[in-house]
Amino acid sequence: MNKAITTALQKIENLNPSNAGKDFLLSWDKSADDLLSILAIAEILRMLHQEGKSFRVFDSGLAVSIFRDKSTRTRFSFSSAAAALGLSVAELDEEKSQISHGETVRETANMISFMTEVIGIRDDMFLGQGHSYMREVASAVTEGHQQGILHRRPTLVNLQCDLDHPTQSLSDLLMLKNHFGSLENLRGKKIAMSWAYSPSYGKPLSVPQGIIGLMTRFGMEVALAHPPGYELFEDVTKMASQQAKESGGSFTTVENMEQAFEDAHVVYPKSWAPYAVMEKRTELLREGDAEGLLELEKACLAQNATHISWECNEDRMKATRGGNALYMHCLPADISRVSCKAGEVSHGVFEKYRLDTYTQASYKPFIIAAMIFASKIDHPARVLHKLISRDRGNCVDFCG
Amino acid sequence: MNKAITTALQKIENLNPSNAGKDFLLSWDKSADDLLSILAIAEILRMLHQEGKSFRVFDSGLAVSIFRDKSTRTRFSFSSAAAALGLSVAELDEEKSQISHGETVRETANMISFMTEVIGIRDDMFLGQGHSYMREVASAVTEGHQQGILHRRPTLVNLQCDLDHPTQSLSDLLMLKNHFGSLENLRGKKIAMSWAYSPSYGKPLSVPQGIIGLMTRFGMEVALAHPPGYELFEDVTKMASQQAKESGGSFTTVENMEQAFEDAHVVYPKSWAPYAVMEKRTELLREGDAEGLLELEKACLAQNATHISWECNEDRMKATRGGNALYMHCLPADISRVSCKAGEVSHGVFEKYRLDTYTQASYKPFIIAAMIFASKIDHPARVLHKLISRDRGNCVDFCG
Amino acid sequence: MNKAITTALQKIENLNPSNAGKDFLLSWDKSADDLLSILAIAEILRMLHQEGKSFRVFDSGLAVSIFRDKSTRTRFSFSSAAAALGLSVAELDEEKSQISHGETVRETANMISFMTEVIGIRDDMFLGQGHSYMREVASAVTEGHQQGILHRRPTLVNLQCDLDHPTQSLSDLLMLKNHFGSLENLRGKKIAMSWAYSPSYGKPLSVPQGIIGLMTRFGMEVALAHPPGYELFEDVTKMASQQAKESGGSFTTVENMEQAFEDAHVVYPKSWAPYAVMEKRTELLREGDAEGLLELEKACLAQNATHISWECNEDRMKATRGGNALYMHCLPADISRVSCKAGEVSHGVFEKYRLDTYTQASYKPFIIAAMIFASKIDHPARVLHKLISRDRGNCVDFCG
Repeated sequence: MNKAITTALQKIENLNPSNAGKDFLLSWDKSADDLLSILAIAEILRMLHQEGKSFRVFDSGLAVSIFRDKSTRTRFSFSSAAAALGLSVAELDEEKSQISHGETVRETANMISFMTEVIGIRDDMFLGQGHSYMREVASAVTEGHQQGILHRRPTLVNLQCDLDHPTQSLSDLLMLKNHFGSLENLRGKKIAMSWAYSPSYGKPLSVPQGIIGLMTRFGMEVALAHPPGYELFEDVTKMASQQAKESGGSFTTVENMEQAFEDAHVVYPKSWAPYAVMEKRTELLREGDAEGLLELEKACLAQNATHISWECNEDRMKATRGGNALYMHCLPADISRVSCKAGEVSHGVFEKYRLDTYTQASYKPFIIAAMIFASKIDHPARVLHKLISRDRGNCVDFCG
Repeated sequence: MNKAITTALQKIENLNPSNAGKDFLLSWDKSADDLLSILAIAEILRMLHQEGKSFRVFDSGLAVSIFRDKSTRTRFSFSSAAAALGLSVAELDEEKSQISHGETVRETANMISFMTEVIGIRDDMFLGQGHSYMREVASAVTEGHQQGILHRRPTLVNLQCDLDHPTQSLSDLLMLKNHFGSLENLRGKKIAMSWAYSPSYGKPLSVPQGIIGLMTRFGMEVALAHPPGYELFEDVTKMASQQAKESGGSFTTVENMEQAFEDAHVVYPKSWAPYAVMEKRTELLREGDAEGLLELEKACLAQNATHISWECNEDRMKATRGGNALYMHCLPADISRVSCKAGEVSHGVFEKYRLDTYTQASYKPFIIAAMIFASKIDHPARVLHKLISRDRGNCVDFCG
Repeated sequence: MNKAITTALQKIENLNPSNAGKDFLLSWDKSADDLLSILAIAEILRMLHQEGKSFRVFDSGLAVSIFRDKSTRTRFSFSSAAAALGLSVAELDEEKSQISHGETVRETANMISFMTEVIGIRDDMFLGQGHSYMREVASAVTEGHQQGILHRRPTLVNLQCDLDHPTQSLSDLLMLKNHFGSLENLRGKKIAMSWAYSPSYGKPLSVPQGIIGLMTRFGMEVALAHPPGYELFEDVTKMASQQAKESGGSFTTVENMEQAFEDAHVVYPKSWAPYAVMEKRTELLREGDAEGLLELEKACLAQNATHISWECNEDRMKATRGGNALYMHCLPADISRVSCKAGEVSHGVFEKYRLDTYTQASYKPFIIAAMIFASKIDHPARVLHKLISRDRGNCVDFCG
């Protein structure tokens, strides 16, 4: 057996996670062992895939996805993960169904779950709604299961909400682990989570929140930078501070990109909308005020435009550790003079790190597969052992 | 082996069904043994699922779905059933294809069938069309198969047409069987299939027709209630009368909800459109008369509004057997002061039976799986034996 | 073992193809052995399917499809092929993603490929774009694989571009092989690839180009007919001439349908747009000139209308070899007085050959499956042997 697999497997055996039967909604609701277990499972599944081995664990079954916002990376990551585990994806297209809010979420949640193993949800557009929606679905399937209506309770995976984007942040963490050699090596490494200019409007806050909510648990020096008015959700920044203290790292907020980048090992420059705008938008949408929304968009773009200088470029990268911090982005990035006139990152910087951003994205299917695996499998180490020792090629051509 | 499974299996061995190779379009085209066999198969598959066992019978293959109307429950039930049996779902999206009526239905039917095991169709919008469309598809694939173009003839499952909604009515029958303990116990039980007010327009007649067309075969006392002008298709009501006579039950039509509910063991209050409106609508749609359609909708809603008192509420429920008849609904229900100002059912009544309606819906994936199973498997009892004795966990975690 | 299977298998063993790891973009980029191998694999898979045997080779995995134009036949053929091989289809819906041209094609290509075995693409609308797009995707996944980002490089299958429609032309070739008994028998047979009138606008040139680009390699007498102004891409007609010389066949261009049909064994009358119109259209679309596009459509339809006499009808069929040449069409055909007032083919001729056109279409799922098989399996003969000898029923009912 591959030595790296053996090592990862031993790691899992020494953990005491409680992922089985549990949803993955927010990374900060998970224990360290929960997260370490998922990371190790993801790494093992990734190595099996690399060797052309199958890690299919289901004979059949459904994985339901609900996308309330556009998605390429996460959509395909979820489909890949489900297919690799042996599940068929069925997407709940709310336009082809008759879904309304309020009373019927709990009904729909049960109607799609009679033979469903996992439900993946993206609902990131409206502040105070995405996470609530997921909790509503979660509590509905819990009721359905407790009442004997659902033979098994499907587990939920948050594919991005208004608070967190855990499939992204855990993929990013795996990227950092591999970049620096180990999770232990992340201690004391500085990561700059910085706002960056984009000519677009309404980008969710969940990526920066996910990053500061996760990386502060691993002893990193997390520097958050944004213009005034672009604050993140206060509960999350407070929590990040607390976690940094406990982990021996730090969490600081600074007011410009330069300060954040100073001596940073990692930079993560990314645009997001002002919290106040997102709140106002949610309100206007609820009222169906189309005119108000147009005005808000205009005002927000004008506000953004006053911060057009927040671009990650060669000059700013020079100030990072050794001048070559790792540049990260969840993609797609707004690249100056490529996808827009002025954007989050200069063409030169993006090109230099383009393949790194692909690698960063490449962890996501395995993170999602591991989240599903961990939530559905009571004895992950035992089953992984079984998968490794059955040594089944994913294609019959690879079989003996 | 689970005793309930053994009993169900014995039942199948004593039947003489002819489902193999046949479509399931209308419940009244099926023999008693056909129906009993499908019910028993559904129960066995359901028990296997409950125990976490796989009932996958296909190594690969396609299940095609054609939805010409919105659907959540039936769509996910079909997807679940197909996935559990080992088939991949491919949906024919008529907007992404180039489908027209008439000449080309038979062409399309063959084009989607070269490697297809089953085709599920919902076409319930237009009187005189849904069932005809299914027959056209059926005859096209029969021709394709007879001419050697299709290696195997895909079998059709009616996922709701203008005449019948058999995956619903058979699920409902299974619900009743479990509620009352056995099919035999249904004899003499009164079911009230009643029209109910809804502020919507154009709801199909297929659910009430499916219910009276099926339950009259099992010795039930079926009472149909609706305002004048909301008659069902005459062929179906005549057939229901005849069947009731033969089964030792009864079929009566009454003019108000109260009379139907009187001493009923089961109530099924549900809105549908007047037959004449549905006919007119089909005509206007064919002519593309948008203005006429708007006027018709207005007129129909006004007509409905004169019957706003047809609500299933606490008062009316008091008159049922022991004051606690089983309330049934195919969902989603129009709930007064929840999903609309005034609707089919009061909030209180719906809440009391909400979980029962979920249970009712929970049979559908297994009914659909059983319909597919019965149509594709020559020796259902033998194959079920095989599935039971192979004892394969649906998840590798459950395996020995 | 079925004798026909043994024969086909021996054929493969004597070939020296280099399909493994390669995309299938243009038939003329493939060697004779590449094509012969794919044809033989398709025939074996088809025979296995006919006998109810499974030819599933993947335990799990993704097949991604990208349709930039409407499709029924090819869409279902791709889904069927993927499902039969054990892959789950995930469709890249560009409206549900955030895809733009240029810079991001290479990004998207990698994002959808982390666990993907094959990517099928239809992009046939714009001259000079479809094939370029496929090459861009191909080079992006090559880069991703070489850089270690993709564990395996997904192979591409062209589901129709602006230049070629190889899944169609290879299906057609298999149809001809079976119609005439062998590929050898195609030598000296005359096929008339003729333009035909259609009241529609903007039909791609890829089918006629695919036909003349493939059939000239098998010693056929290929006659291309079209009105002036409806020339095909010059590179392809030149290549067809050259290939005809090398194969001992011929390639001629004539100016009317009669001449092409004269003594033809096979006729393939089909509409396509004038090259100049397609060029202009691509330009106008790029400029977003809606008015210009409307004018172009009008002008093109007017131009088409001057050639309304180009219909394949009984009179013209009389001039073919023995009066009963095989009529071919990729479907759907524009049938006079059925799907349009005047079209590509008379009702009588189409009816006579309707089932033949279905048979012609029936090869496509197996051709696509064979293309995927050949590109993913290093040792096709060895794996086919394995599939045949494992003798696994596709349905458990067929198993011993």
